[in-house]
Amino acid sequence: MTVVATEDVVAVHQLYGRQSHAIDSGRAAEWAATFTADGEFHSPSYPEPAIGTGGLTAFAARFHESGEQLRHVVSTVHVRRGNTTDTLFADAYLQIVASTRLVRLTVLEDELVRTEGGWRVRRRTVHRDS
Amino acid sequence: MTVVATEDVVAVHQLYGRQSHAIDSGRAAEWAATFTADGEFHSPSYPEPAIGTGGLTAFAARFHESGEQLRHVVSTVHVRRGNTTDTLFADAYLQIVASTRLVRLTVLEDELVRTEGGWRVRRRTVHRDS
Amino acid sequence: MTVVATEDVVAVHQLYGRQSHAIDSGRAAEWAATFTADGEFHSPSYPEPAIGTGGLTAFAARFHESGEQLRHVVSTVHVRRGNTTDTLFADAYLQIVASTRLVRLTVLEDELVRTEGGWRVRRRTVHRDS
Repeated sequence: MTVVATEDVVAVHQLYGRQSHAIDSGRAAEWAATFTADGEFHSPSYPEPAIGTGGLTAFAARFHESGEQLRHVVSTVHVRRGNTTDTLFADAYLQIVASTRLVRLTVLEDELVRTEGGWRVRRRTVHRDS
Repeated sequence: MTVVATEDVVAVHQLYGRQSHAIDSGRAAEWAATFTADGEFHSPSYPEPAIGTGGLTAFAARFHESGEQLRHVVSTVHVRRGNTTDTLFADAYLQIVASTRLVRLTVLEDELVRTEGGWRVRRRTVHRDS
Repeated sequence: MTVVATEDVVAVHQLYGRQSHAIDSGRAAEWAATFTADGEFHSPSYPEPAIGTGGLTAFAARFHESGEQLRHVVSTVHVRRGNTTDTLFADAYLQIVASTRLVRLTVLEDELVRTEGGWRVRRRTVHRDS
């Protein structure tokens, strides 16, 4: 079994931490910057994917403008080897929580790419249980 | 205070990530393989423990067959030194969540053993608050 | 972008794991010891901050005596560079959960200091959404 390097697993945890705090605080550009410049976000909660830095920034800005303070609670991260040494896959659980109410639970399926600035999401596919 | 090595802590996080995604996706053999061949699973939610690769695989298969899509959300992991350099203890919180409903919250108390394939659960004891 | 060292990120994850399991198990002195001797805990859930080892120990003891078994579920940790090489900042989500009921969701904003015994919380500010 090929093992993902310790520092790469930790970098993915850090990326996910940064990502959630950015979108939940309304820092849309910072959230978009955790994706590659051609990064993709696909989710059954939204009719269209968000693609590229511009599309991702607009998506995050709209999310935060919607009013209610929501929190992207990420847990249960599993990082897997990608197809190249500069690619990883990751699975995680994402709970969107409003104060004391669990709004939805989703499963993240990410493809990550190593860039000069560290690991970035190349393609995120969100799966919803219901 | 003796500190658990960075790479061992991360390996336990990876083990738990892999474990949850395996059982929740119905990959019973993969879940069982995160335990040692003589691994034990004890939980007050079930009348009998599941023991050994065969017993663990059957347990995970039954869990998934029960129908409702549940998610094993693991968080708040604390890895502690074991009694030998090839043993660790870990405490974690496990929330079993169905879409937007928290089904139960439990505390994991694990004994892990270093094997040729990496860290594996030797004995898991689940504690339930109610 | 300056990156926090892998071992420091993991040490913070370990600190948070230890912290939650300590307070939830009634080990008040162990919880207080995860703060510096002059550590501060500020939370809108309580009228006064808890300050210093004595104050923090008393706070944790009162929390546990309150009766209901609560769990401090920490997730979505993001560790950031501090103002010196021996200081870090961390953001995290903290859900306080009672069995199957989410009691409250808060955001942790911590300042951590490197001590001879490892990283410790110098100042914790808890933010509540509602």
